[in-house]
Amino acid sequence: MKTYLDCYPCFLRQALSAARRAGASPEQQRRIVLRIMDQLHSFPADATPPEMAEAIHALVHTETRNPDPYRAAKQAATEQALALLAQLRERVMTATDPLNTAVRIAIAGNIIDHGVAESFDLEATLERVLAQPFAIDGLNALRQALAETDSVLYLADNAGETVFDRVLIEHLPHPVTYVVKAAPIINDATHEDALAAGLGEVSEIIDNGSAAPGTLLTRCSEPFLERFARAPLIIAKGQANYETLSEATAPIFFLLQAKCGVIAGDLGVKQGDIVLKAPKISGQEPRQLS
Amino acid sequence: MKTYLDCYPCFLRQALSAARRAGASPEQQRRIVLRIMDQLHSFPADATPPEMAEAIHALVHTETRNPDPYRAAKQAATEQALALLAQLRERVMTATDPLNTAVRIAIAGNIIDHGVAESFDLEATLERVLAQPFAIDGLNALRQALAETDSVLYLADNAGETVFDRVLIEHLPHPVTYVVKAAPIINDATHEDALAAGLGEVSEIIDNGSAAPGTLLTRCSEPFLERFARAPLIIAKGQANYETLSEATAPIFFLLQAKCGVIAGDLGVKQGDIVLKAPKISGQEPRQLS
Repeated sequence: MKTYLDCYPCFLRQALSAARRAGASPEQQRRIVLRIMDQLHSFPADATPPEMAEAIHALVHTETRNPDPYRAAKQAATEQALALLAQLRERVMTATDPLNTAVRIAIAGNIIDHGVAESFDLEATLERVLAQPFAIDGLNALRQALAETDSVLYLADNAGETVFDRVLIEHLPHPVTYVVKAAPIINDATHEDALAAGLGEVSEIIDNGSAAPGTLLTRCSEPFLERFARAPLIIAKGQANYETLSEATAPIFFLLQAKCGVIAGDLGVKQGDIVLKAPKISGQEPRQLS
Repeated sequence: MKTYLDCYPCFLRQALSAARRAGASPEQQRRIVLRIMDQLHSFPADATPPEMAEAIHALVHTETRNPDPYRAAKQAATEQALALLAQLRERVMTATDPLNTAVRIAIAGNIIDHGVAESFDLEATLERVLAQPFAIDGLNALRQALAETDSVLYLADNAGETVFDRVLIEHLPHPVTYVVKAAPIINDATHEDALAAGLGEVSEIIDNGSAAPGTLLTRCSEPFLERFARAPLIIAKGQANYETLSEATAPIFFLLQAKCGVIAGDLGVKQGDIVLKAPKISGQEPRQLS
């Protein structure tokens, strides 16, 4: 997805929020905001929003010497989500259509996103997402793709959301590789965050070699790109994975909440809608990385 | 009120919204947003947000050659408000405390603000504001000040909101001078807008000589400044009047809804709160323009 002009105010908001979380002084906050405006001047019109977000958070890390401003928020979100784990599993076990419920739970967890909002109501979101119709409903396509494949590459999003992913992964009938970020960026899950959420018990955890939000293929490591190219079925969580991979030629199912109006508009849905978007191609077709 | 860094994202949002309303092409929209970011670089740290807003809307007017992008929105808001006029008057007439109700009605009309949001629910806001406790309650001070004075200078805010002001003005026991903008800026009321709302029937309408939001004393005309300096009691409507006059030494009662988090923070109230803030000095004391 390209960057819209509507993303520019959001970049400044996000820079300011990250700077404050990182403990920046008012003077540092001002310097960060002014530099981000400079960088936006030369930001390529066809670049995706996570490319700018990567630059923003790199600047905040450098300016404040704080490499992980969201560390405490990530740990708190993981603990909050783990406290719900037994209840989430119970909901899948007792569901009429367990895959449907497990997918909705994974999407509900996508509300834990400090790039979009300062706070969230996890339990209210869970009830909403369990009941809400899909604005884009690729559930049957996912069901069929799972029946035809033998492994899943799962592109993670945020810490805490990891626990909700775990519930879906426990229900999947195949080995899962769970892909996290190589270093901290916003509240995106790293290897450490995934382990804390228990993902090591249900999947192989790898990182994509990058510290950009989403999956910026140009920034990812060779080992990850090989796995990505071979994967017969990819589940990509969250807005940033949609922003960075919406044009990729790959068998990707996007699972997300459209929390931002720009992404909702790009997907043709309303803000607040839930999305399970099936790929245009299947994993059986030959393909190239785009 | 000084400009906070949190205002910067909002300036970009407002520039984009105004550009689109003015019919700017995507290329023009991009040019406007980039130029606003340039101007923010040299924007004085102690300037008020309406000074930047004035520059933003001047740029949009120049770039798009559209001097009044909010014209249709202003007319629609005035018509919508006029349709409520009889009901609003009835509410004051049947109230236990008519001044309290008339003040609340004037504050309810402050929801009509295209600088802050694209849309509003006028009737729901009216019911909320009629019932909501004041977060800052200067009603008794206003009652006393009205008893001790013989005229009121009323600084208007937005078109449509004018009708709600009219209901309060009809209840005031003194002659009122209603001050509008000298030229269009966002959806602020001009002389034409005030006339359309019937303010000519209940007050003398003058303009402040400026096309900045709020009341930027450095931009106002001499005739207005003389009236302002002599006024024994001033009612100032809306956020921009608070932003520009919060430091002024004058007998100003601020009536507003704290629609923006920054202004709410500056006032020490919560977003969504209603405010009737009494002046620190009375109109009887000698004073200088600040």
